[in-house]
Amino acid sequence: MAGDGSDQRALQYEQTLMYGRYTQELGVYAKEEAARLRESGQRRSGDRSRTLDLLEYDKGRCAKCRICTVRCQKFLISRVGEDWIFLILLGLLMALVSWVVDFCIAICLQAQKWMYGGLDSNVFLQYLAWVTYPVVLITFSAGFTQILAPQAVGSGIPEMKTILRGVVLKEYLTFKTFVAKVIGLTCALGSGMPLGKEGPFVHIASLCAALLSKFMSLFGGIYENESRNIEMLAAACAVGVGCCFAAPIGGVLFSIEVTSTFFAVRNYWRGFFAATFSAFIFRVLAVWNRDEETITALFKTRFRLDFPFDLQELPAFAVIGIASGFGGALFVYLNRLIVQFIRKQKAINRFLMKKRLLYPALVTLLISTLTFPPGFGQFMAGKLTQKESLVTLLDNRTWAKQGIAEDFDYIGHSQAWKHPQLNVFVTLVLFIVMKFWMSALATTIPVPCGAFMPVFVIGAAFGRLVGESMAAWFPDGIHTDGTIYPIVPGGYAVVGAAALSGAVTHTVSTAVIVFELTGQISHILPVMIAVILANAVAQSLQPSLYDSIIRIKKLPYLPELGWGHHEKYNIRVEDIMVRDVRYITLNCCYRDLHNVLLTGHLKTLALVESAESMILLGSIERAQLQSLLSQQLGRPKRLEYIRERAAAEKKRLSVVSIPGSEDGGQRASQEVRFQISTEESSFSPTRPVPQKPLKPALKRPSVVERPTELPTSPQDNSGIALKNLFCASPDTEGLEDDGDVEDDMTIREIAEWEEKQLDEQVNFNNCKIDPAPFQLVERTSLHKTHTIFSLLGLDHAYVTSIGRLIGVVSLKELRKAIEGSVTVKGVKVRPPLASFRDSGTSSSENEATELHKLWDRHKSMSLPREHTPSESDEKSQ
Amino acid sequence: MAGDGSDQRALQYEQTLMYGRYTQELGVYAKEEAARLRESGQRRSGDRSRTLDLLEYDKGRCAKCRICTVRCQKFLISRVGEDWIFLILLGLLMALVSWVVDFCIAICLQAQKWMYGGLDSNVFLQYLAWVTYPVVLITFSAGFTQILAPQAVGSGIPEMKTILRGVVLKEYLTFKTFVAKVIGLTCALGSGMPLGKEGPFVHIASLCAALLSKFMSLFGGIYENESRNIEMLAAACAVGVGCCFAAPIGGVLFSIEVTSTFFAVRNYWRGFFAATFSAFIFRVLAVWNRDEETITALFKTRFRLDFPFDLQELPAFAVIGIASGFGGALFVYLNRLIVQFIRKQKAINRFLMKKRLLYPALVTLLISTLTFPPGFGQFMAGKLTQKESLVTLLDNRTWAKQGIAEDFDYIGHSQAWKHPQLNVFVTLVLFIVMKFWMSALATTIPVPCGAFMPVFVIGAAFGRLVGESMAAWFPDGIHTDGTIYPIVPGGYAVVGAAALSGAVTHTVSTAVIVFELTGQISHILPVMIAVILANAVAQSLQPSLYDSIIRIKKLPYLPELGWGHHEKYNIRVEDIMVRDVRYITLNCCYRDLHNVLLTGHLKTLALVESAESMILLGSIERAQLQSLLSQQLGRPKRLEYIRERAAAEKKRLSVVSIPGSEDGGQRASQEVRFQISTEESSFSPTRPVPQKPLKPALKRPSVVERPTELPTSPQDNSGIALKNLFCASPDTEGLEDDGDVEDDMTIREIAEWEEKQLDEQVNFNNCKIDPAPFQLVERTSLHKTHTIFSLLGLDHAYVTSIGRLIGVVSLKELRKAIEGSVTVKGVKVRPPLASFRDSGTSSSENEATELHKLWDRHKSMSLPREHTPSESDEKSQ
Repeated sequence: MAGDGSDQRALQYEQTLMYGRYTQELGVYAKEEAARLRESGQRRSGDRSRTLDLLEYDKGRCAKCRICTVRCQKFLISRVGEDWIFLILLGLLMALVSWVVDFCIAICLQAQKWMYGGLDSNVFLQYLAWVTYPVVLITFSAGFTQILAPQAVGSGIPEMKTILRGVVLKEYLTFKTFVAKVIGLTCALGSGMPLGKEGPFVHIASLCAALLSKFMSLFGGIYENESRNIEMLAAACAVGVGCCFAAPIGGVLFSIEVTSTFFAVRNYWRGFFAATFSAFIFRVLAVWNRDEETITALFKTRFRLDFPFDLQELPAFAVIGIASGFGGALFVYLNRLIVQFIRKQKAINRFLMKKRLLYPALVTLLISTLTFPPGFGQFMAGKLTQKESLVTLLDNRTWAKQGIAEDFDYIGHSQAWKHPQLNVFVTLVLFIVMKFWMSALATTIPVPCGAFMPVFVIGAAFGRLVGESMAAWFPDGIHTDGTIYPIVPGGYAVVGAAALSGAVTHTVSTAVIVFELTGQISHILPVMIAVILANAVAQSLQPSLYDSIIRIKKLPYLPELGWGHHEKYNIRVEDIMVRDVRYITLNCCYRDLHNVLLTGHLKTLALVESAESMILLGSIERAQLQSLLSQQLGRPKRLEYIRERAAAEKKRLSVVSIPGSEDGGQRASQEVRFQISTEESSFSPTRPVPQKPLKPALKRPSVVERPTELPTSPQDNSGIALKNLFCASPDTEGLEDDGDVEDDMTIREIAEWEEKQLDEQVNFNNCKIDPAPFQLVERTSLHKTHTIFSLLGLDHAYVTSIGRLIGVVSLKELRKAIEGSVTVKGVKVRPPLASFRDSGTSSSENEATELHKLWDRHKSMSLPREHTPSESDEKSQ
Repeated sequence: MAGDGSDQRALQYEQTLMYGRYTQELGVYAKEEAARLRESGQRRSGDRSRTLDLLEYDKGRCAKCRICTVRCQKFLISRVGEDWIFLILLGLLMALVSWVVDFCIAICLQAQKWMYGGLDSNVFLQYLAWVTYPVVLITFSAGFTQILAPQAVGSGIPEMKTILRGVVLKEYLTFKTFVAKVIGLTCALGSGMPLGKEGPFVHIASLCAALLSKFMSLFGGIYENESRNIEMLAAACAVGVGCCFAAPIGGVLFSIEVTSTFFAVRNYWRGFFAATFSAFIFRVLAVWNRDEETITALFKTRFRLDFPFDLQELPAFAVIGIASGFGGALFVYLNRLIVQFIRKQKAINRFLMKKRLLYPALVTLLISTLTFPPGFGQFMAGKLTQKESLVTLLDNRTWAKQGIAEDFDYIGHSQAWKHPQLNVFVTLVLFIVMKFWMSALATTIPVPCGAFMPVFVIGAAFGRLVGESMAAWFPDGIHTDGTIYPIVPGGYAVVGAAALSGAVTHTVSTAVIVFELTGQISHILPVMIAVILANAVAQSLQPSLYDSIIRIKKLPYLPELGWGHHEKYNIRVEDIMVRDVRYITLNCCYRDLHNVLLTGHLKTLALVESAESMILLGSIERAQLQSLLSQQLGRPKRLEYIRERAAAEKKRLSVVSIPGSEDGGQRASQEVRFQISTEESSFSPTRPVPQKPLKPALKRPSVVERPTELPTSPQDNSGIALKNLFCASPDTEGLEDDGDVEDDMTIREIAEWEEKQLDEQVNFNNCKIDPAPFQLVERTSLHKTHTIFSLLGLDHAYVTSIGRLIGVVSLKELRKAIEGSVTVKGVKVRPPLASFRDSGTSSSENEATELHKLWDRHKSMSLPREHTPSESDEKSQ
């Protein structure tokens, strides 16, 4: 049992060190893990003996053959553990999923067009068909997702960012979610709403990776390692973007920018490998399906290579970048505003909550009514699907010639942009404005959907608008000497698409995605300039869309240090730390424990040597302390006490006492009383809503199957917890069979007994202590603290001074310090106490004094190694 | 003084926490820093008062105007601190440098061609001109670099990797090095040897950043922050690659892959911003110089867009990837072999060391003789420069038609590949083979040079060879139905270039560089597949070229965890840690200190509470302990003792003692004796060669100017150090003027006195203690340890168990553990003690026992808070 304790502690420590888990179940999880490891060890040895048996049995016939088979099997199984096999499987799977989803979406969209086209005799019927179809699909998608797995709603990137930070989100990576996400996404995109598949694909790829991991763990043990799984999830995010756009490089970079704070270059190849393979298969499927002749880009452009743009066009590109920056920030703001408006309006909210599917249906109705081609849709190319719009926008022909849009030969889908009464500029402006708010609204529908693609299209339209204007302004191009190079508005569309999507997501890698999507890199400098400018503007105005959703969903996060806010280098930990640390001492009694648990609400508590020395020895989980306390005050302990008392009495009187008849009712009341006291100790009065324990998402199902074997924390189910503690405790094992002891104590007696128990000293022997919690010093800068917290995914860190605990910094303080000095609106506030820093010589004096004290204390203990000067004088002579 | 101590400690702590400095000078550096801060504070207040004076003086005339000017000035100065200004300046500077270097190289190469062309009447004169020119240039480059700054030799990427890991390399980022690197590089590349400019440009950009930082720090204080400087250096590396190839995206990615282990996504935009700006200016300069019409790629290709390659060509691309992997590994091996051969051959070595410039001259002579166009050069396109070769190799026309190379119309430089007797395949093979060993040899010349570009060209030639073979094999292309799409050998050249350079540098981002260099991304999938395969092969055979150089140069490094070596997840810290930790206790005497310093050789020592409890309180630098010891045994202390003794004697006898006349000589002998004893204590006998202190490279020159003000570590110059310690110690300040005390002790007396001094308890008050050294637990996995070490740039970490120090892990152990299990040759060895892990329950029992002990000890101290059960019983009733 002691060995398991060490296992658990180590496991737990490693997890807390690397990933600040937001769960109280950690102790339980660790025990489960240990139990599982033990069991798998037994199973393995069992396998071995069985193999040996087999060998002996078949010795006569074809033993060699069998040995060979067993070896081959072993070899294959060991190979299965290799990373690249996993990555190939993941890539293959995701390419298939992506292709199938695309195929289904295409069929859905075709069906709508077919219906709409077939009913051209009656406009009203046409309208009904145009509107009903998406409403039904979206409602089905919303309902299906709601019923099967509400976790599948939305983009998935914010949640993946949180998971990759080490936070365990419940039910987030299960098969149910996978099914809900894939089917929900297909229906949502099949409806033709301005929604994207990129965010959900990141989530789907992560789901695939998690499920594949689970499946592969049947073959090899390596799939049970958590840090490996996190690495695989990071690769999966890259695969998700990669196979969605057939953009392996952009996918890897985008997923890194969007999900990570610190990226291990070690993991780089994983992402590239899987994403390339996935993109390859995705495009090969298109070739095999005779859609394409060979592997090319998804939205291939054909701009001229020799003179892609003139140097004098660069200001126009810069304007696109800056405008996109403002537009991106506005999009994020609008999206958040809509969510918050719906939440705040309680009347609306209550109504919508009752009819959960009404909101999606209403939004879809509004949007599809506005895009109805014979209606308002004719002014904004409403009949084009997202893909068709993008293809036409990236076209390398100029729509507007000589300022008039008439003499452009509209072929194919490009015809949609032509309107008899309006010129192409008005159509484009209407398209941009309408699509802008429609996309912001549509992404709030509770279906699996992303915002990248709609934003991308809007950006392309904006770029095209600027490009067409430039082409109308300079019909023969700007270049002055010799050859005429007309302006290519398609190039502007590429730049606009990259800039706006970069501004919304706060990423630079949209530039790479754009190159991979169009298959041309000739506009690299304009794209880079526009993307960087857009990022600079957007980042100074709003958080990224994903961070905005993280804040709306109240997921744990750590804000980024912004662009060059160099005052961060001057704030120190001592300015932000909480000095009033809750701690327990090594020699404290259970009453102190009880008090600390009652007053504080931290998930872990510091263990110090004594209140005088304050030397930090480690940290203990709250749940651990709770279980210690309930063990001390629990029924088993009391029964033991009664038995001892009885034994003593027996000795004294030598008479067997007969159990009382009032036993049953009284016991129940005690049970209740005890439960109440546990409740009190586990939850502080300042926090009325108990924090929900988050389950580790990647844990194996076998653990879930046998919950009664595992001790759970007392607030979950005290009875079972106590029973477990009872069984698990080695020194009370003999008690279980001791049926002759009966609980005959009165309530007063119990209260007395509990008071007595509370005054005993705590025995930390069976308690899991994290012996090396992360430590900082007072003068560590905020900048470095932020780095360390995000590097190691910490939740809190203790501030020490020569081993003495003097403060604690948690994610909350850090967040406050960063956002306090740089608020979203750009107002900079000096952090409290920062002004005292320069004259802060007192702390070091304190340190010296404290060190002296410690030293004097040791001196007074008079250890044998100490010599007086006179002694040494004698010795040396 | 106490305040300064705290400053210093904090500074020092932060540095050790984040960057495992390989320097013993840290204490000194911290003191300098503190002194500087103090001084700048004074200067600032001085400024303020001067401004006020000015204002009062001019009150009558235009006070408001003046205030306004001062404010504007302040505003401008504060703006200078913004990151983006720095990055723009850096980008601009580097673009200019890159352009000027390119321009000079072009002139040099043209001059050679002109000389060679002008002497076409006489082959011997031609040969002389062809050979002498590069020999002179290379010899000058080598000599110039050697004399001005030997640090400028070589690529610079390995050193930058080391610096970014937090190691301070001496004299590596100075102006001298900058000059040497730029001029040396220009001459070396101007010679036409197969050398590259990419590695040196990374170094030059870092030099620029460091120098610019230094310059900018004249305006604002922010430039003095070290963690900011490290971030700027990372951005500078990206700029270096970016402006070298006009490849901003590839530059950023390549620099990340090559220099970082963990990358802060926060820094991403810095790199992109600066690299884009730099690439932009670099290309704009070309446009302004009328070299180009507009901004396009450096080596623009014109492959067809509609059908870049057939799916059935992919196996050929895969073959290029795998072959390039082997080739890359061979190149790294060959390069290392040459260096080691030259080093080992003592006779050669001794000769070459005497005539330092002989080796470069000989190598250049050999290479230029072989490339002499009328000689052997005619068979390997010897007259083409590197740039010309690359342009011809990436040509989109096919050289070999129908298997015969004759009917190809050789225009321009492509003619060089044609030889009347040989067909193009033989020329290409000869080119590849000759250039391969030439490049490997040329990069060992001690001039500033990189290997990227030569390798890139060889890769392109290899790709071209495969492409031409394919074109000869399938004259009408592979595509079967309908249109004929002939094979494009230029596309193969692109793939080959990316694959071979990726294999040599172990990077995937060469793919992106290739796209940016050629301006076409149509071959993205073949390039990605080939690069990934090449990386997979090369990484399993050899370290990257840069890691190989790091090992050759014996720079501190931490090997990477390879591709999917999942056994790493199963090794624990307890398997690799050193259990016999050198430590000092809080109550130790100077003799213990002396012994510890004599026997150990660690740079930092652990400070524990006592030998019994082993509670880790912090760590102390070796230099600190040495200074403590020398303070205790030093002359000032002895003088004080003499004075005290004299005072006591005076009191006793009331007679003034007259100083002895033998004073001078004796004092000298004492001085010598003391110096010897310091030497003994500072260097352990096990380490005969004293480690050279590395100077912090970014420190300000003002510090260097007044060395006598600053206390230096005793082994540098004992006399001055003691003087400084004497002056700096506040409690002995009064002593300085006390000229009446004379040193009249005999040697025997001194020995006695020293023995007595050694038995005193150590006073740690003025000693800088790092109160929170990094701690691990026994069961932390090797994988996580590696992550933490590379994340935080640690040098060592203590292993603790509930506050108790039980071991230490340093970079050395970690390196041994990783390389022990995965050696370069691919043999996997199980680490020692790994087998004991599974049954390792004993340690937890130990822990419990130790905790008990600690607890019992506290009990026995009987603190007032403890109650006996009977007491509490009474209270509760």
